[in-house]
Amino acid sequence: MDLGKKLIEGNRRAAARLISMVENKIPEAFEVIKDNYDKSGNAYIIGITGPPGAGKSTLTDKLVKILRSEGKKVGIIAVDPTSPFTGGAILGDRVRMSDLSVDKGVFVRSMGARGHLGGISEGTMAAVKVLDLYGMDYIIIETVGVGQSEIDIVKNCDTTVMVMVPGLGDDIQAIKAGVMEIGDIFAVNKADRDGARKTAREINIMLDFSKKEWRPSVDLVTAVKNEGVDKLLDSIKKHRYYMKDTGKFLIRREENSKSEIIELVKEKITSIVLDKSYKEKQINRLSKDVASRKLDPYTACTKIIEEVI
Amino acid sequence: MDLGKKLIEGNRRAAARLISMVENKIPEAFEVIKDNYDKSGNAYIIGITGPPGAGKSTLTDKLVKILRSEGKKVGIIAVDPTSPFTGGAILGDRVRMSDLSVDKGVFVRSMGARGHLGGISEGTMAAVKVLDLYGMDYIIIETVGVGQSEIDIVKNCDTTVMVMVPGLGDDIQAIKAGVMEIGDIFAVNKADRDGARKTAREINIMLDFSKKEWRPSVDLVTAVKNEGVDKLLDSIKKHRYYMKDTGKFLIRREENSKSEIIELVKEKITSIVLDKSYKEKQINRLSKDVASRKLDPYTACTKIIEEVI
Repeated sequence: MDLGKKLIEGNRRAAARLISMVENKIPEAFEVIKDNYDKSGNAYIIGITGPPGAGKSTLTDKLVKILRSEGKKVGIIAVDPTSPFTGGAILGDRVRMSDLSVDKGVFVRSMGARGHLGGISEGTMAAVKVLDLYGMDYIIIETVGVGQSEIDIVKNCDTTVMVMVPGLGDDIQAIKAGVMEIGDIFAVNKADRDGARKTAREINIMLDFSKKEWRPSVDLVTAVKNEGVDKLLDSIKKHRYYMKDTGKFLIRREENSKSEIIELVKEKITSIVLDKSYKEKQINRLSKDVASRKLDPYTACTKIIEEVI
Repeated sequence: MDLGKKLIEGNRRAAARLISMVENKIPEAFEVIKDNYDKSGNAYIIGITGPPGAGKSTLTDKLVKILRSEGKKVGIIAVDPTSPFTGGAILGDRVRMSDLSVDKGVFVRSMGARGHLGGISEGTMAAVKVLDLYGMDYIIIETVGVGQSEIDIVKNCDTTVMVMVPGLGDDIQAIKAGVMEIGDIFAVNKADRDGARKTAREINIMLDFSKKEWRPSVDLVTAVKNEGVDKLLDSIKKHRYYMKDTGKFLIRREENSKSEIIELVKEKITSIVLDKSYKEKQINRLSKDVASRKLDPYTACTKIIEEVI
């Protein structure tokens, strides 16, 4: 049974199985990706991020429906930031997307941020490759964005959509200021609410100060009513063509590959060092000494590393 | 000029300077902490986390005012998740806390999550130690919590307060489910809003399923009106005494030290490997090959690591 061959042929169960395998870090799955890596790279990867409660899932849902009506196959990976504890998926996402999940041209998967080392996890990055090889035309990575996770998503996408929403308070304002550089497109969702135009205006003002060549559009959307979603998709496509036409598409993919390689190196080298020196007893003894102030943590760190290098 | 000595004597400028130094990873500052580490460990560390817009800063503000009326000195570190891009602090926090910052018994500092490798940054952890040595009775770490950052905060605190708020939508519900294990205390802020009691009830129901010995209290609070804040502080103190009385306080500090040591090892070993093999040209060439699908990222990673080990 050659899983790789099945995957390339569009076998749905092979795709599902391989994603489970990469999630559980089973080496055979990464071998399949390695063996077929030269056939990948065809899917267009869209990141959808924004604060909790911005309606990202609903928006994704509607975007996917339009893409489906155009005959495009779409993979969706919902990154679940809560998973380090729950070890599972957000039930809500699954329920909401349930009518999509019976569609053969759509592949939905919720994934945890488990095992992550300051980046979208190795598993998520690998799942994107699996869905790419599976033949998806578009892959949408959806994640709740507050700080780090937003920065991570942009490193893995061809186009990043920042979903905003009117009136979520001061924290949101602050976060907005910090993430302006991330969005290739801005969607102000729940645009039927008070303050939507004001939010859009504020975003536009901030964008005026940006020095990027690409000027992100700011689209008003009301996803639950399916209003403005087609226009948002047009904006995404416009960004796609802009990137291709200017040659920036490949440059961005190179930058993303670089981030990915560095993340992989971090993950790998850490597991090498901690595995080697992870004599549970020794590290526990050091921790005891640090907690009781007999030893400082920096010296403890040096002791562990010196054993390996 | 011995910065360490000045710090221990309660010199405010020394504290400020040392925090800036750890934030900028200046080795001398870590030497000061190392040299004085045996004198630290006296401050009680409270984590305050919750979704954006939950009113954490206002709540912190009110908590600090009560602690001040009890004659306690309080350090506040506001972790700003947006900082990887802005490189600075959330202005809003500073403004809101401005009346506190003229109080000599309070030390407020916003810090970025810069340089972080899947954890509260080395800088933040070091700043806690600086404020501890500076003689603060309490140190409050405030951070926007969505997933990872919530998990990180608990690893650095003696008591963690999860701030919830009624009616923030489905994402929040999902996140709530994922973080129940983090909160030692739950505060439902903006309790004058519709649905506050319902939110508290839901949290209580979830807590009924928890197997932890400590049963977190769920306090209704309206921070802007200063309602319920005193009761929340009582809950925090109750948790503190429970931890001390049962001997769990030291066990938790040992666990926290362990997490810290592991984080430091991760950070250090990564910088060693990437520095050594970070021949910019070589890594760029590998990235180009990966982007154009001539090489897969896993093989690229192995090539880099093999050069060092």
